Amino acid sequence: MPAKHDTLALLQTPVAQALLHSTIPARLAYTGRDGTPRVLPIWFHWTGEVFVLGTRLNSAKIQALSTRPKVALTIDTESFPYKALQVRGSIEIERIDGIVPEYELCAKRYLGEQRGQAWIAQLRQAFPPMARIVVRPEWVGILDLAQLYPQVIEAVMATE
Amino acid sequence: MPAKHDTLALLQTPVAQALLHSTIPARLAYTGRDGTPRVLPIWFHWTGEVFVLGTRLNSAKIQALSTRPKVALTIDTESFPYKALQVRGSIEIERIDGIVPEYELCAKRYLGEQRGQAWIAQLRQAFPPMARIVVRPEWVGILDLAQLYPQVIEAVMATE
Repeated sequence: MPAKHDTLALLQTPVAQALLHSTIPARLAYTGRDGTPRVLPIWFHWTGEVFVLGTRLNSAKIQALSTRPKVALTIDTESFPYKALQVRGSIEIERIDGIVPEYELCAKRYLGEQRGQAWIAQLRQAFPPMARIVVRPEWVGILDLAQLYPQVIEAVMATE
Repeated sequence: MPAKHDTLALLQTPVAQALLHSTIPARLAYTGRDGTPRVLPIWFHWTGEVFVLGTRLNSAKIQALSTRPKVALTIDTESFPYKALQVRGSIEIERIDGIVPEYELCAKRYLGEQRGQAWIAQLRQAFPPMARIVVRPEWVGILDLAQLYPQVIEAVMATE
């Protein structure tokens, strides 16, 4: 596991910053109650120090995460040459009797201001109580295919 | 866990078929050697029965997967309203002293025929031996936001 300052430094790189401020959902991996892996797409809000996720409090993933707080997530591009930010960390869960504030920020970032407001308005009655999940990064990895294999990628992209 | 025929029936639905034949990378979750979750993007080939993945044999994930064969993967769209195919299953790993045939099919599907050939030509000397990973689905879930919350989605999408 790299030292804390390496983790934070990697998160400041241009590739990481672009992914952290993109509208790509995070894919969050955790361990299910039966001990086997789970993975799902979820909106994330990056505060500059931690990721904040919001979901229904009454859900199977919250039950699993409550006893197994280690997670991993990837934020990566769908098109070639791929860029990926990979994070491993520990979570904390807080009950919110309303909409998680960072979830509301997510709605506006991912959907745009107007649609985000419409989404939140629709959910305000149906969704609470919510779980506010804070993911604190303990390990960070960046994969940037074009930087990793510049000649290979150049040759492939030049092919018509 | 649903019965086997339910799993296969879900994989035949139009939403699942579209995702299975898309060029969206799978996000594969597994358990690392330290027992904590991992997740990474990876090309997949769907045979109609199993997923086939190809990667370097000499890699940390193959070491982890060799002793912990349970995985989960998600194939899901990046844009709203989201569609997701979620799979849990068990893997088998086979050593291939060359390019995994299904990995070559992936290269052509994800990159197009010409660029796929160029990618494989570049890797042929550097990549082998490879691991051919077969993921056999044991549980399947489909999330189609537009089907799940039709009125909410309609209201949100109508917002300008």
